[in-house]
Order: sequence, then structure tokens, then C-alpha cells
Amino acid sequence: MKKPLILVTNDDGISAPGLKALIEVASSIGEVVIVAPDSPQSGQGHAITLKDPLRVHKATTYEQFEAYECSGTPVDCVKFARDLLLKDRTIDLCISGINHGSNASINIIYSGTMSAAMEASLSGIDSIGFSLLDYAWNADFEQAKPYLKEIIENTLKNKLEGTNLLNVNIPNLKREAIKGVRVCRQAEGKWSEKYVESVDPRGGKYYWLTGEFINNDLKEDTDLWALDNGYIAIVPSQHDLTAYSAMDKLDWLKK
Amino acid sequence: MKKPLILVTNDDGISAPGLKALIEVASSIGEVVIVAPDSPQSGQGHAITLKDPLRVHKATTYEQFEAYECSGTPVDCVKFARDLLLKDRTIDLCISGINHGSNASINIIYSGTMSAAMEASLSGIDSIGFSLLDYAWNADFEQAKPYLKEIIENTLKNKLEGTNLLNVNIPNLKREAIKGVRVCRQAEGKWSEKYVESVDPRGGKYYWLTGEFINNDLKEDTDLWALDNGYIAIVPSQHDLTAYSAMDKLDWLKK
Repeated sequence: MKKPLILVTNDDGISAPGLKALIEVASSIGEVVIVAPDSPQSGQGHAITLKDPLRVHKATTYEQFEAYECSGTPVDCVKFARDLLLKDRTIDLCISGINHGSNASINIIYSGTMSAAMEASLSGIDSIGFSLLDYAWNADFEQAKPYLKEIIENTLKNKLEGTNLLNVNIPNLKREAIKGVRVCRQAEGKWSEKYVESVDPRGGKYYWLTGEFINNDLKEDTDLWALDNGYIAIVPSQHDLTAYSAMDKLDWLKK
Repeated sequence: MKKPLILVTNDDGISAPGLKALIEVASSIGEVVIVAPDSPQSGQGHAITLKDPLRVHKATTYEQFEAYECSGTPVDCVKFARDLLLKDRTIDLCISGINHGSNASINIIYSGTMSAAMEASLSGIDSIGFSLLDYAWNADFEQAKPYLKEIIENTLKNKLEGTNLLNVNIPNLKREAIKGVRVCRQAEGKWSEKYVESVDPRGGKYYWLTGEFINNDLKEDTDLWALDNGYIAIVPSQHDLTAYSAMDKLDWLKK
């Protein structure tokens, strides 16, 4: 039987340990092609590179695979792979990550990892973003691997229905402490920013973004509840941002 | 009566004619505070600046207003305004634009204009992104102004219900040819990319992103239909990306 073709990308860059872990799992299941940013791209959201050209090179990090590093954003990587590199082939699955840190709740909209997966999903490709709740470079990705393998294999077997995009967040726990998988909705959390103000060596004032995550949405059907309670949280996600329930509340706009 | 406080931003940068047009309209209605990127930021989506500090300066372009230019993305501008500059005041409305070019259909996810408005909406601030269907720097924003004024005034008066975010796209037509306003859903269009390949003066290969917009969703309830037929398209939009209808189709993930 022909092996499935799996496109792998991330937002932490080609050298990130989370990408390595994802490639290890994916290459045990299918043929992998890797196109990842040549530098960290966290917080790039759905940004694309319009003003500058892209540079793409074979990635020496992964010589045993068809692997490329790209000067653009995570979304650029997927566009390049889908529309140029693999344009004559069928991509069976796009996986992005494993992100170093959470993409649960509102983090999905800032996330390069999830935006890359969403970009692939726009063309009808089943796509999954994976994130581990540990921002550390040396996070322990081993614990999650059996779960990742199962999710990827099951998705290839069953195909996604109703959406092409999954947001998978994994608690930072030992394998035996992970209770299983829950399908959830995105919790209604948000960031409240604080800026660190300082002065550079030339006397110029600058502001550095820091933030505090606030969640007042504690219901059991949310991704944050699942993660807090030891489950892997899977949110089926979509790119249609229409607020359908608000459509009939705007008649005054037409006056 | 106290004038409403209106935060104005955009993604084409502090010197864009579209921003000037929006400020002209907004300042006839309320007190405006402007925080806009110091350079063009089209296609930045919901990107935020994490690795570098922000630089913020009084904008000489608009000395008569409280106006700042910021080295970050459109979303950075809104975070800075909301959480530092205006943190002790109540922002009654955030408006973003007028974008030079369409943000209808799937363009909303790539758009810095719409992401800025969405960022404000996350804090419960009524927010509107405006876009004119003309990419030219010298686009004619005069025609749309009376409509913008009405939409802004009506939103301040009625407050948004069911969502805090509107995506307003304006056809590039003379005032008298615009047929009115329609509340729509986001059409299911997408981009298919082509890359222009070339070689730089030092022999390095590069790829430049170009694309073709494809729309197979021609129904009358879409933003693209409204625009094609001479209407201003208003899509109530949201940040909850959960695909609720897919939630009960994923039981096989839990096995």
C-alpha cells in the first residue's frame, strides 16, 4: 500500500526539538516532506510575506528527508509546499508543531503553528496543529508521542468531517498521568498585556510586550478545563469567522 | 454630552491615505486617538512582536490629534493603545482602515486591518474594520465617507450585539452607484498561489508570492455577492474558531 504523504511544518523553526519529535512520529507512519521556517516565528499568526521574496534551502538538519528551511512565516511555508514544491502531488495530511507552549483558547489566533495548519486546511487538506504545554526549548516531547501517533493514524484512516482542522494541545504530564483525549470548544480566555518600559544604550525609549492570561470560562466543555484536568484537548477549528448568531441583530445597520 | 473615544488604527501605516480618510470621518464624530504602524504591515494577520521591543513616537503626520506611530504590527498597536496608552480610559469604539484593498471572504484571516479590530474586540470593545476595494495608494476614499459616518454613528448609538466585530468592505464605486448596505456571511473563497522564481544579483535564488483569488461560493448571502452587486458588505465576525458542527463527528479520536 502506498504510504500517505505528510507535510510537516512548525513555527519554532527548523531546529526546534518539537519539530524533531513530530517528524519522528510522522515518518513512522508515512512519507514526510518538511518545510519549516529558518528562524523562530512564534506569534506570527496568519502573517504572509508580501514585501520580500522568500529564500528556501535544503535543510541540513534533516538530510535523510525531503526537508527545506524557508525565510518566511509558517503560512508561507505551507503555501510554498502546497502550491510549488508538491503542486503535482496529493498531500494526505498536514501537521504542524509540536509547538513549545500552549495554543489553547484564544492563543489559536496568534499562533503560527495553528495558522500553518489552517492554511493547509483551506485547500481541503486534513490538518492538525500540535502543542505541548511547556515553553522550554528542552521540553519533554517523548511522553506525548504515543498519543500523537494514534491521533495521526486515526485521522489518516477516518478523515476529518465537518472541518479539516484540529487544534491539539497536550498537557505537560508523564505518559501514564495523561487521562486520554477530549473533544472541546475553545475557551473564552484572553491576554491582558503589560509593557516593560526601558531605555536602550543610545537613550531611545522602548516597550517590551509581556502579558497575563486571563480565563473566566471555566466550563467542562472547554480546552482549558480538559488540559487542567489531565486530558489532551482537541478543538475542531475553522476559518469561517462569520458570527452567524449576530446576523439578525444588525438590522439598524441597513437604515 | 461627552464625546465618544475612538481608537483609530490600520495596517497600511501612519501615512496611508485610507487612514487619513478614516480619521477625517471619526474626528467629526468623537475624540480620536491614533496608534498606527510606522510602516506598511499588509498581510500581517494577527502577528505580534515578541522577539523585539516596540518603539513608539508621536506622529508628526497628525499633530492636531493624539497620534502615535509604532514599530510593531497592527495588533501590537491596539494592545499598546488599550493596555498602556489608554489603560485608564474607556475606548468606546475601535476602527481600523480604511484598508487599500479587499478584506472580504478569506482575506479576513491574512488582514492586519481586521486583526487589529479583532484584537480590540477581544476586550469587549465594539470594533470595525473598513476596506475599500481598490489597492491603489491614491484610491478614492471620498465616495465612501458618508456611509462610514453612518455606520460609525449607528454603531456608537446601538452598540453591537452577539459580536463586537464588524468586517466592512466597500465597493469601489461612485457614491450614487452604491446601492446600500447588506449584512452577509464570509464567502468560502481562497487563494491559489503562484511563485515568481528569480535570481538576485549575487546568484541567490528567490521566490516571490503572487496569487489568484478563487471563489466558487456565489450565493446571495455572501460578502462577495454583495460587493459584486454594488452593496457595502458587512460581516459580523468573531474570534471563536471552534467548528461546533464537527464536535460530534470526532468520537473516533477518543478511542
